[in-house]
Amino acid sequence: MAQISDGATYAPNGKPAPVVKPGEFVFSALGLYHGHIYGMCNGLIEAGGMLKSYYDKDPKYMRIFAQRFPDAKAAAREDEILNDREVILVAGADITSERCALGLRVMAAGKDYFTDKAPLTTLEQLAQAREAVKTTGRKYAVYYSERIHVESAVFAGQLIEEGAIGRVIQVVGFGPHRLGAAGRPDWFFIKKHYGGILCDIGSHNMEQILYYTGAKDGRVVRSQIANYNHSQYPELDDFGDAQVILDNNASGYFRVDWFTPDGLQMWGDGRLFILGTEGFIEQRKYMNLGFKGSGGGHVFLANGREETYYHVEGKVGFPYFGQLILDCLNRTENAMTQEHAFKAAELSLIAQRDAVVLEAK
Amino acid sequence: MAQISDGATYAPNGKPAPVVKPGEFVFSALGLYHGHIYGMCNGLIEAGGMLKSYYDKDPKYMRIFAQRFPDAKAAAREDEILNDREVILVAGADITSERCALGLRVMAAGKDYFTDKAPLTTLEQLAQAREAVKTTGRKYAVYYSERIHVESAVFAGQLIEEGAIGRVIQVVGFGPHRLGAAGRPDWFFIKKHYGGILCDIGSHNMEQILYYTGAKDGRVVRSQIANYNHSQYPELDDFGDAQVILDNNASGYFRVDWFTPDGLQMWGDGRLFILGTEGFIEQRKYMNLGFKGSGGGHVFLANGREETYYHVEGKVGFPYFGQLILDCLNRTENAMTQEHAFKAAELSLIAQRDAVVLEAK
Repeated sequence: MAQISDGATYAPNGKPAPVVKPGEFVFSALGLYHGHIYGMCNGLIEAGGMLKSYYDKDPKYMRIFAQRFPDAKAAAREDEILNDREVILVAGADITSERCALGLRVMAAGKDYFTDKAPLTTLEQLAQAREAVKTTGRKYAVYYSERIHVESAVFAGQLIEEGAIGRVIQVVGFGPHRLGAAGRPDWFFIKKHYGGILCDIGSHNMEQILYYTGAKDGRVVRSQIANYNHSQYPELDDFGDAQVILDNNASGYFRVDWFTPDGLQMWGDGRLFILGTEGFIEQRKYMNLGFKGSGGGHVFLANGREETYYHVEGKVGFPYFGQLILDCLNRTENAMTQEHAFKAAELSLIAQRDAVVLEAK
Repeated sequence: MAQISDGATYAPNGKPAPVVKPGEFVFSALGLYHGHIYGMCNGLIEAGGMLKSYYDKDPKYMRIFAQRFPDAKAAAREDEILNDREVILVAGADITSERCALGLRVMAAGKDYFTDKAPLTTLEQLAQAREAVKTTGRKYAVYYSERIHVESAVFAGQLIEEGAIGRVIQVVGFGPHRLGAAGRPDWFFIKKHYGGILCDIGSHNMEQILYYTGAKDGRVVRSQIANYNHSQYPELDDFGDAQVILDNNASGYFRVDWFTPDGLQMWGDGRLFILGTEGFIEQRKYMNLGFKGSGGGHVFLANGREETYYHVEGKVGFPYFGQLILDCLNRTENAMTQEHAFKAAELSLIAQRDAVVLEAK
């Protein structure tokens, strides 16, 4: 698939690493609004999942999906998938504000749910999702792609696990994105649908802050949003940032924005800086600024022994997907705990709700 | 001079670019505690200043200074310099908490004062310094070296001036430093002397936030300090960060810390990220992470037309010093306004005063 400009269809190809035999893990796709659905399905297929069927009420998205996954079956209605007893998990990238309702239907039908981030847009939805997980025993997994589907992010986690930088004390993330407004659907600019920038792309960074600090909870101590330069879209937050104190007193700060300029080689120069007591790590996730064609997967490590540049593109893979499949089959939580997935969403929603609005001057 | 590990004697050599004839601008050095004094004198000499004399009550610092500037005269007492009618400006890098008192004496003697940052350690001192500037008509200039004595920082300012990234909406800075505790004097670890990390190295970043956003004032909306990993120095802040909203509703965030690990090629991987409405700039001030021997002066620009890596080391120079000399002679404010220098200090002091303490867990 050709790379397009806005990152909405970022769907990296990893090395196939099946964790199950063909047919052991059957899944379907429901809600195809956001291009992340391709990456989600890719990842599961590479890990051995069988994509059986897909459905969206918009024929346009059905056509695009059919071209991408010709072996899967176009379902006639959502029910056809929900009633299919062979389907273990439903992957969905519905309009953000509809993702929770879809998840409730999926879990009520006895299936695990794997949704694009942000997984929901209100704290009320979050309470419903938490309750449904409890009553159905099903999973509400979230595709926080900027960590689980980015090799530099996976590798950084492995370095920290090995103790390469000691105890993590701070995480700073930049999540710039290209707006590509012409290619965006109308709902993308309506706050009740996309949830605000901190709820939406902010959730990637909130998840990473929790993950790399090893924290289970945190407090949002400051958050801000602005529409600095897009008055034609009055409900768009083109800028947002948030600061979090974790339950282990590490801290996190991130900025997200829609200001990636057209001259940049990629839709966003996503970065993550992890400061530890014994060293630090920088990730340049999708590109190495100033070097066109540099690809993704740039990890820089400095500690007491070394200063090293690792280019890990194509070398690390994406263990999340195989772990998720096995978690569904074995009812474990190795890919990501349910509480972690919800906590990242919760903190993002709180950051959005409490954000100070910086007026453009 | 050999590069040492902790950055305290960072003193880059620029291209000599005299703005005055020999002997037209005579200055002296008083208070030689911090190695920044070498950079301050270097810069003024390259711009045509004549270093006449120097004094510190500690003979150790007198000896080191004499080796560095053999043409200057060792004064016997502070008064010898203060009473020298030929001396127009006194450069000083006293213990931080003593810098204001020295400045008051210098200005009372009818001379301009050029102090290392942080220029003072309390808001009371700041009020005294402001008052003395008013009553004496002299200057209390500040060596915010991370901008005025760093070529990437100067060049970034020129790019912004030319409109390369539109209107600046956010500045994020990282000011990591190597502790090199063994080489530090005792006062360095005593808060009433060094002022706290946000007052001290934070002032560099506060100044840059004001400068690059083009703001005249700001509000500190969040600041934090911690001693995460140096319990042997209970008054050391080894971590600090602060967030500021400027009077033009741009914002700034910075982190400073003493966690540069020994494996890093340089005392700190100083960075600055400037986000504009039409593009962004990244500075890697002293090194290019992962590439040993890369030197300083790395500037990355992306906007609607280009994504460009500029390596400006040795190409830009340090116009601040010549401007300061001419400002002293002509009573202008082209190098930096007095209010800007004081405002950066004021916001740093407020950030320090109001900082939430994150306890190590």
